Amino acid sequence: MQLCYSATSPYVRKVLVTAIERGLDKQIERISANTADPSNDNPLAKVPALIMDDGEGLYDSPVICEYLDSLHQKAKLFPAEGPARWRALRQQGLCDGILDAAILRMLESKRRPEALRWPDWIALHSGKVSRAVDRLEAEVAHLEGSLTIGQIAVGCTLGYLDFRFGHEDWRPAHPKLAAWHTEFAKRPSMLETAPKDPT
Amino acid sequence: MQLCYSATSPYVRKVLVTAIERGLDKQIERISANTADPSNDNPLAKVPALIMDDGEGLYDSPVICEYLDSLHQKAKLFPAEGPARWRALRQQGLCDGILDAAILRMLESKRRPEALRWPDWIALHSGKVSRAVDRLEAEVAHLEGSLTIGQIAVGCTLGYLDFRFGHEDWRPAHPKLAAWHTEFAKRPSMLETAPKDPT
Repeated sequence: MQLCYSATSPYVRKVLVTAIERGLDKQIERISANTADPSNDNPLAKVPALIMDDGEGLYDSPVICEYLDSLHQKAKLFPAEGPARWRALRQQGLCDGILDAAILRMLESKRRPEALRWPDWIALHSGKVSRAVDRLEAEVAHLEGSLTIGQIAVGCTLGYLDFRFGHEDWRPAHPKLAAWHTEFAKRPSMLETAPKDPT
Repeated sequence: MQLCYSATSPYVRKVLVTAIERGLDKQIERISANTADPSNDNPLAKVPALIMDDGEGLYDSPVICEYLDSLHQKAKLFPAEGPARWRALRQQGLCDGILDAAILRMLESKRRPEALRWPDWIALHSGKVSRAVDRLEAEVAHLEGSLTIGQIAVGCTLGYLDFRFGHEDWRPAHPKLAAWHTEFAKRPSMLETAPKDPT
């Protein structure tokens, strides 16, 4: 398998943590997003995209993570059914929504030409992130129990907020989540995949 | 169940088509996105969000559609496993990526103050849409067979392109996809959910 990769993408990190936690990472060749042919492998030009051994591409990160979870015989990160499944998937959905909003905010405030930035857009997406992190704090009890894709998503999402918005520390207003994250961040899979900005 | 709803969201349409196709739509109360309490039900303030009967919210649209698919005993729209599952989920992932890009382009060119628009941003997202629709054309044979969430996603995505970008008809360059969509759009679930702009 080949993974279209970026060292700073939190969605890629979710895939890699999933792979490492279940011993699949050695089967995954990482290829730079810049060398993948977008017209073929990855028409959306997004990371992550997984090129399966049969040559077909797979996206987006929830689909890739669930596919990887189908390739091993250990405890599943995606509960098969029932409330446990919907809880894990809603946690992942909430976190992917946080990341979508945080990334749009980052692009607006760092990548877009300064004269074209729109404060309302930044405020809109900051509000989404802020309310959703409040929700994670309120539901921190849902993060107990065996490892799921929900926990992985929360860990990678909070790691991204630290990476890109470290000057706006979310911890003081979310002490239970902070305590959870301190422990979760010690996992070897999290340490190995901590984002590093090449710039 | 309550569904945070907008008449023009293609992600909401995917949920409604799923519900109608499996006879669940009468169990879903539609509530306007504006009346839902974002701090409670739906911290990301996105549609769709589904409030389940136990009061917990569910997002985003792939999770909601799969949840609805677990509530009936008819043929499943999400294949349970194997290549059929990954094919349907990758089709949905590709289409959600088209929609994400098309909506960012629409917001940039219609909602953002004119002086703050960035042509490079529009070009970036137009390119994603264009390459991904090319990919759908190349893989149109994958749309045959019994109804799946992949087909529903493709139908709703092409419907959204017609709705918002009807002046840039995708059909001439994608004749096989056009023929498929002409038939698919005749389904009662598609006719009933066709987007109407209140403005």
